Amino acid sequence: MKIENLCVKRLIGDVAGATTHGHKIALKGGYIYQTFQGGYTLSPLGWRVVKNIENIIRQEMDNIDGQEILMPVVSGADLWRQSGRYDKVDVLTKFKSRAGADYVLNPTHEEVVVDFVKSVLETYRQLPFMVYQIQTKFRDELRVRAGLVRTREFIMKDAYSFHNSVEDLEKYYNRCLDAYNKIFARCGLKNFVHVLSSTGDMGGSVAHEFQLVNDMGEDTIYLCDCGFNANKEVVDGDTEICPKCGKKMRKVRGIEIGNIFQLGTKYSKSMELTYTAPDGTSQNPIMGCYGIGVGRTMAAIMEESADDKGPIWNMATAPFKVEIIALPDADGKCVKLANELYEQLKSCGTEVLLDTRDVRAGEKFADADLIAAPIRMIISGKNLQQDAIEMKYRVNNYDTSILPTSIAIANWKKELDEIICKLSK
Amino acid sequence: MKIENLCVKRLIGDVAGATTHGHKIALKGGYIYQTFQGGYTLSPLGWRVVKNIENIIRQEMDNIDGQEILMPVVSGADLWRQSGRYDKVDVLTKFKSRAGADYVLNPTHEEVVVDFVKSVLETYRQLPFMVYQIQTKFRDELRVRAGLVRTREFIMKDAYSFHNSVEDLEKYYNRCLDAYNKIFARCGLKNFVHVLSSTGDMGGSVAHEFQLVNDMGEDTIYLCDCGFNANKEVVDGDTEICPKCGKKMRKVRGIEIGNIFQLGTKYSKSMELTYTAPDGTSQNPIMGCYGIGVGRTMAAIMEESADDKGPIWNMATAPFKVEIIALPDADGKCVKLANELYEQLKSCGTEVLLDTRDVRAGEKFADADLIAAPIRMIISGKNLQQDAIEMKYRVNNYDTSILPTSIAIANWKKELDEIICKLSK
Repeated sequence: MKIENLCVKRLIGDVAGATTHGHKIALKGGYIYQTFQGGYTLSPLGWRVVKNIENIIRQEMDNIDGQEILMPVVSGADLWRQSGRYDKVDVLTKFKSRAGADYVLNPTHEEVVVDFVKSVLETYRQLPFMVYQIQTKFRDELRVRAGLVRTREFIMKDAYSFHNSVEDLEKYYNRCLDAYNKIFARCGLKNFVHVLSSTGDMGGSVAHEFQLVNDMGEDTIYLCDCGFNANKEVVDGDTEICPKCGKKMRKVRGIEIGNIFQLGTKYSKSMELTYTAPDGTSQNPIMGCYGIGVGRTMAAIMEESADDKGPIWNMATAPFKVEIIALPDADGKCVKLANELYEQLKSCGTEVLLDTRDVRAGEKFADADLIAAPIRMIISGKNLQQDAIEMKYRVNNYDTSILPTSIAIANWKKELDEIICKLSK
Repeated sequence: MKIENLCVKRLIGDVAGATTHGHKIALKGGYIYQTFQGGYTLSPLGWRVVKNIENIIRQEMDNIDGQEILMPVVSGADLWRQSGRYDKVDVLTKFKSRAGADYVLNPTHEEVVVDFVKSVLETYRQLPFMVYQIQTKFRDELRVRAGLVRTREFIMKDAYSFHNSVEDLEKYYNRCLDAYNKIFARCGLKNFVHVLSSTGDMGGSVAHEFQLVNDMGEDTIYLCDCGFNANKEVVDGDTEICPKCGKKMRKVRGIEIGNIFQLGTKYSKSMELTYTAPDGTSQNPIMGCYGIGVGRTMAAIMEESADDKGPIWNMATAPFKVEIIALPDADGKCVKLANELYEQLKSCGTEVLLDTRDVRAGEKFADADLIAAPIRMIISGKNLQQDAIEMKYRVNNYDTSILPTSIAIANWKKELDEIICKLSK
């Protein structure tokens, strides 16, 4: 992609309406655009990052035997009446069709998935299984916050597992907890923890939240040296005493990026989902559910890792892996070499951005900081005289190395693969 | 994936509520499940097919320099009031938030994309560009039909291009028309045509529909030997005379799978989207828009290609590329070899389904017909005695060949790659 055609608006100077640093960087870099209060358009840059996060999630969900499906954004009111939640969930958006039928915009999909699984499940032999989707949800929140941190419309990965015993659910729940740790680590998040939480409106017995420890978070969480972490529903806020070891806990703020629930039979009972057990009796399957805020994960990365210049993506999440910058030169040699390298990288499937615009070097670098390709190749007349291309690595705080032009042209692919491999670790 | 864990319900015998053959096969195979009238859940099977179609679309859109974005399902009423369509589009669903704000479920995204592009576009130097998304839409249709053929909620690929001259739009429009031909051909559709259509409510000058010629289609289209095709808005239904050559046209039925429009400045004018032209004046960009019904494309394949046993996917769309079936045998040798082959294929990333269930051969084959992997590997005691695995190719009307077991084990990957390559042509 050539930078002049990229349908992204980068802003210079201060940004109106940003309440946190990550939100400011997301707006300055043109990652997100507010279509309505709490609803965003993801630009080509923002969507590339979110797609990268989605793919990491897909891989880890498939690794724990998840089967991807897609449920509708809308559903009939009947399903929500069956579960008894139609009049209980305040963020549930209701509307009528022209023909007068009652619909909702699903804020979560327990009702819809249980109704689907009713059409599939017959015998214990099919259990356990897990289905998941990555899909749009709408919640009529009274308050939105910090760009993609709290929105009304958002992309969520929601997974639902079905079991024939509590033990089996617990085993799977722990596999999913491990998968979540892998997902957030692969996304480049650093200071995240899982904390015990209350199951609240969702029903069930055990639940955990995945929280990014961050001062701009709106949740209060408690961490203990003994390894026990919990949110404020579980810990007495007056004493701040660890329910496990009795010591005083550390109180910090967090951004909730995921949550997992042992639901039990709340939904399978209320919606009459059953299977035939080995002894011939009819049983309600035991359920777990597992959510990740996909857009919020992008926002969380920006809250944790962005500096004053822009975001810091890792090799897995970056919208482009390489950016080639040709600095202004009189005889056009830099632009020519930049184009050559660009075509070669593109032909091998590297996600590469090319900047040969006739603008100041400072503008090019400021733009590159906001797009934040982990590898930046700078071609300047001065370097070319020494047969060199300057390589800068954003993830390593702009570490610089020199690549001889001869290698760059003859053997750039091997060289670059090695760099990518090193930076991916 | 092992077939016993696949969260898919296959139905035996007749299916209630199916109005067409493709719809019947989609329900029998458990590809789709009706969550509400006109809203479907895609099962792991259906979603695999739709994802495959989405990836074909993405590749061809990227090939014509498209930039993928994601716009919200919901938007504020204000954008639809700006364009003047708030009270004109009968399928537009309106609702109010708790706080009393007016929202809509977008049935199409001209308003939303123009508002986004207003935040990006400044100068003619940025033109032309095209942005697209693959996303959920909702239309409050009075009538739904034949499964995914006509629904209320559906997945659409919608693309929007922006130009500084009519000539440039026309050039791009033709590139997009070519890309559509490639997309539908790669999806395995055979008898599709593009027909001139009226621009209708969308505004603009020139428009084409892509129609799959099929008796169950609800549209009437006219085809002429001279190469001119049009829909009934363009051709006089009384005379059926070709407006181009004057001969009598052939009247057939079609399923609309895509449409492309030269919109002109209808939306850029009404919503005040401008850019600075080379002469310094402020101009409205000239727009095109380009839609594909993604779920409907899957439905169209099933209407055109399914036989009595099930759908016929090609290598690109099939939910699984290979299915391994172990037939019942006394000493367990078939199951053992099947498991071995399965693990090997899986480890190389082949999308493979394994059936080692202890059920009748007839049930296994009936299930395999509905899942319709292009390559079926059948391991039976009888064949094993002759060191052979039976290979059946669904795309070639169950053509059969024999693979020596020794090759299958030692060199299956090369062998299979050659078969896949041949079948992909």
